[in-house]
Amino acid sequence: MSAIADLFDTDLSVVNVGLEMFADDLTAQGAEVTHLQWTPPGGGRPEVLAAIEVLERPEIAARIEAANREALERITTSQPMLVGFGQAIDVVPGMTRTTILHAGPPIAFDDMSGSMRGAVTGALVFEGLAADLEDARRVAASGEITFAPCHEHGCVGSMAGVTSASMYMHVVENATYGNRSYTNLSEQLAKVLRMGANDRSVIDRLVWMRDVLGPILKEAMEIGGPIDLRLMLARAVHMGDECHNRNVAGTTLLIQALAPGIVQTSFPTELKVQVFDFVASSDYFSGPTWMAMAKAALDAAHGIEFSTVLTTMARNGVEHGLRVSGIGGNTWFTGPAQPVVGPMFAGYRPEDSGLDIGDSAITETYGIGGFAMSAAPAIVALVGGTVDEAVDVTRQMAEITTGENPNVTIPLLGFTGVPTGIDVQKVQVSGILPIINTAIAHKEAGIGMIGAGITHPPVEAFDKAIIALAERFQAGPATEG
Amino acid sequence: MSAIADLFDTDLSVVNVGLEMFADDLTAQGAEVTHLQWTPPGGGRPEVLAAIEVLERPEIAARIEAANREALERITTSQPMLVGFGQAIDVVPGMTRTTILHAGPPIAFDDMSGSMRGAVTGALVFEGLAADLEDARRVAASGEITFAPCHEHGCVGSMAGVTSASMYMHVVENATYGNRSYTNLSEQLAKVLRMGANDRSVIDRLVWMRDVLGPILKEAMEIGGPIDLRLMLARAVHMGDECHNRNVAGTTLLIQALAPGIVQTSFPTELKVQVFDFVASSDYFSGPTWMAMAKAALDAAHGIEFSTVLTTMARNGVEHGLRVSGIGGNTWFTGPAQPVVGPMFAGYRPEDSGLDIGDSAITETYGIGGFAMSAAPAIVALVGGTVDEAVDVTRQMAEITTGENPNVTIPLLGFTGVPTGIDVQKVQVSGILPIINTAIAHKEAGIGMIGAGITHPPVEAFDKAIIALAERFQAGPATEG
Repeated sequence: MSAIADLFDTDLSVVNVGLEMFADDLTAQGAEVTHLQWTPPGGGRPEVLAAIEVLERPEIAARIEAANREALERITTSQPMLVGFGQAIDVVPGMTRTTILHAGPPIAFDDMSGSMRGAVTGALVFEGLAADLEDARRVAASGEITFAPCHEHGCVGSMAGVTSASMYMHVVENATYGNRSYTNLSEQLAKVLRMGANDRSVIDRLVWMRDVLGPILKEAMEIGGPIDLRLMLARAVHMGDECHNRNVAGTTLLIQALAPGIVQTSFPTELKVQVFDFVASSDYFSGPTWMAMAKAALDAAHGIEFSTVLTTMARNGVEHGLRVSGIGGNTWFTGPAQPVVGPMFAGYRPEDSGLDIGDSAITETYGIGGFAMSAAPAIVALVGGTVDEAVDVTRQMAEITTGENPNVTIPLLGFTGVPTGIDVQKVQVSGILPIINTAIAHKEAGIGMIGAGITHPPVEAFDKAIIALAERFQAGPATEG
Repeated sequence: MSAIADLFDTDLSVVNVGLEMFADDLTAQGAEVTHLQWTPPGGGRPEVLAAIEVLERPEIAARIEAANREALERITTSQPMLVGFGQAIDVVPGMTRTTILHAGPPIAFDDMSGSMRGAVTGALVFEGLAADLEDARRVAASGEITFAPCHEHGCVGSMAGVTSASMYMHVVENATYGNRSYTNLSEQLAKVLRMGANDRSVIDRLVWMRDVLGPILKEAMEIGGPIDLRLMLARAVHMGDECHNRNVAGTTLLIQALAPGIVQTSFPTELKVQVFDFVASSDYFSGPTWMAMAKAALDAAHGIEFSTVLTTMARNGVEHGLRVSGIGGNTWFTGPAQPVVGPMFAGYRPEDSGLDIGDSAITETYGIGGFAMSAAPAIVALVGGTVDEAVDVTRQMAEITTGENPNVTIPLLGFTGVPTGIDVQKVQVSGILPIINTAIAHKEAGIGMIGAGITHPPVEAFDKAIIALAERFQAGPATEG
């Protein structure tokens, strides 16, 4: 027998580098495979390789390391507190009666995805800025409405993220660094504005949220006082939420914390009961809460010279935009929004899906959501995949992040902190993209949620980001020149 | 080189049978060890071996298998519903004004552990049956008080389990089989009657629970209607509770379900707020609830001829008593209550610990608690050990149980059902004792909880049980002669 035949007669342990197809073949044959997902740095793209080389220059690398340490510290030491609820017009900086905020990077109405257009027109009817949905399409395209990303107004918005003047917002204050963030309230069920639905039932719910839910929560917070969201988040993660698409624990913890205040509000008992019933109608209630919490922490880490840490991943359904600490401000690095792969609700097929949408990837940017899937094995029932894969994701994400968050830990991994501070440079060098688990909205306006699954930001956005970082760092920090 | 020297020069994978010391040695040397915990069936005890032989006779074995299938089905198809709250005197069968129920098998006052005596005397003061604790000791020993196990009155009691006439009880009805079970309300904090504390603060809390908490919960249930406890339990297990010592999720789910009813009760707002604050003051609130749920399911599986399945594991702090389905009735098989090994609260040492106490092992008997530790890796912070050990326990318990409960699953184990229906015969053949995770009460009266940890029922109780089963089955079922 030849030596090579001997080799294939023994049990194989194989380390596979590169092409996944080969690994699949070996796995199908029952061999153990450790797949390293190795790709050449920057995917071998010359401009990206050149940018990586700049970032690896010792004098720049040292400044990056210090800046990223600072970014990580700011994210993990941030203590976001829920301090109240209020209408967007009253609490959101720069809000006007004719402003519509939306998820993701900037986009014009005509370019928006179906679900975002559905949400915008629904919101215009809700605000009384249009008589009906047809009128709303005219108004939206008329130039009378100011469209802007949520992120550029201190906000985050789930899915379409459409936020209008009279909607009630969470008000979250970062007790450590003083900045504030905002997000609107969960509409709960599947046929909701944030997913692009906009019929009478959707508008009626928004009216009830404006006239009953919002005012009761506002008064409840005035009575009950601030709620430590980071502490509550840490508990929710210990209770099997990853806090993006699984919010079972967070919702129960949040309503438990709000309950004494709600009971003491001046509203009639019947309306208080409506609030409890509404919160109990879906596990999603705390989903937006964690988004605002993450936003408050990440905004505190935005604009640190020489930091390659991401502070925003946000999608508008057409483009996925990144913001990077070391660039700061409202500079977006974009690429095409990606498909979301996962189980569909009965009656829908993958081709019905809109592309990845929403500011909710702020949770992954913070280190929860897809990054904390190992804390939430039950999530696979919603987003697909196996429990083993879910557990493994957190370890993978540790390879592209700056460190751990000691305040948000995963019991199953021996109480390791969630992987935090996505590093553009590590993403490019490793070829590992951040994982996002997310809901799927129908691609057309007026329908709603049709599934959930897994996706990634586009590599194009990371290419633009690292090239810009290299240019900036080569030139020296903005304050020096 | 000799062949044996070659062997020890290579990496070793060793399957170790029997003495653990040898395994420890190998592990210390860095070899991989798979330890089977093999002991001879029945520990080699002749009477037990003879009993096992009887149970393995084909005609008996076939009847046992069918009976245990029936027991498993009754446990897993039971749908216990929380249907109300009421005072023990009004709802518990056979309760009188001078009855004190306690945890575990029967025991006289003079023989009780320190913590149980503390709880009994506290309850007598609370009920107005004694002027003070000294008087209570006299009353308790006077013969005027009827002592009986909770289990013999359809009840279960946490720790000392002391239950007196005016305490409010959960009323749980098994919707599938019609039987009811009862347990009193969580006192929450560490210095509580159930742990043997009995000072003024403890009595005052019991008075508030009788006059405020109990009546509000009773009215809330009348307004809100029944709550499906099995469904809620399944959710809590998916949220990282093992539902014996970790009740974070269960407590939030339960108060969320009760909230709309509480809000609508006729009580003043101030008292409603007290109830929400009390429930939020400790994660233990749902602990007793799951005990009553498990009791309702297991009582439905009690008294099945030829079943070797345990329906009760209960400890009074001196003895640990088992009840077995195929024997039925109030026949207890007892052995000495065991020490509980785990982390102590600051300032206490293992020698301060009382022995294992409480009816709470009804949770393990149902398949949760210690049996579901792999669902609750965060529990190790309370009961000690490592996350890997916690995860492994569930797999071990599968070896001594009859099957899985498809209604209560563990995401981390690929949504496997919890191991259910502890089989006395499998325990004896495998030498694996059921694991119980539990709180530690101080050994003296008047102090309270001082830690938590892991323990087992005594092997003596299993010896008595299997010998009785063999005698019974040899004689043929009771109904046949």
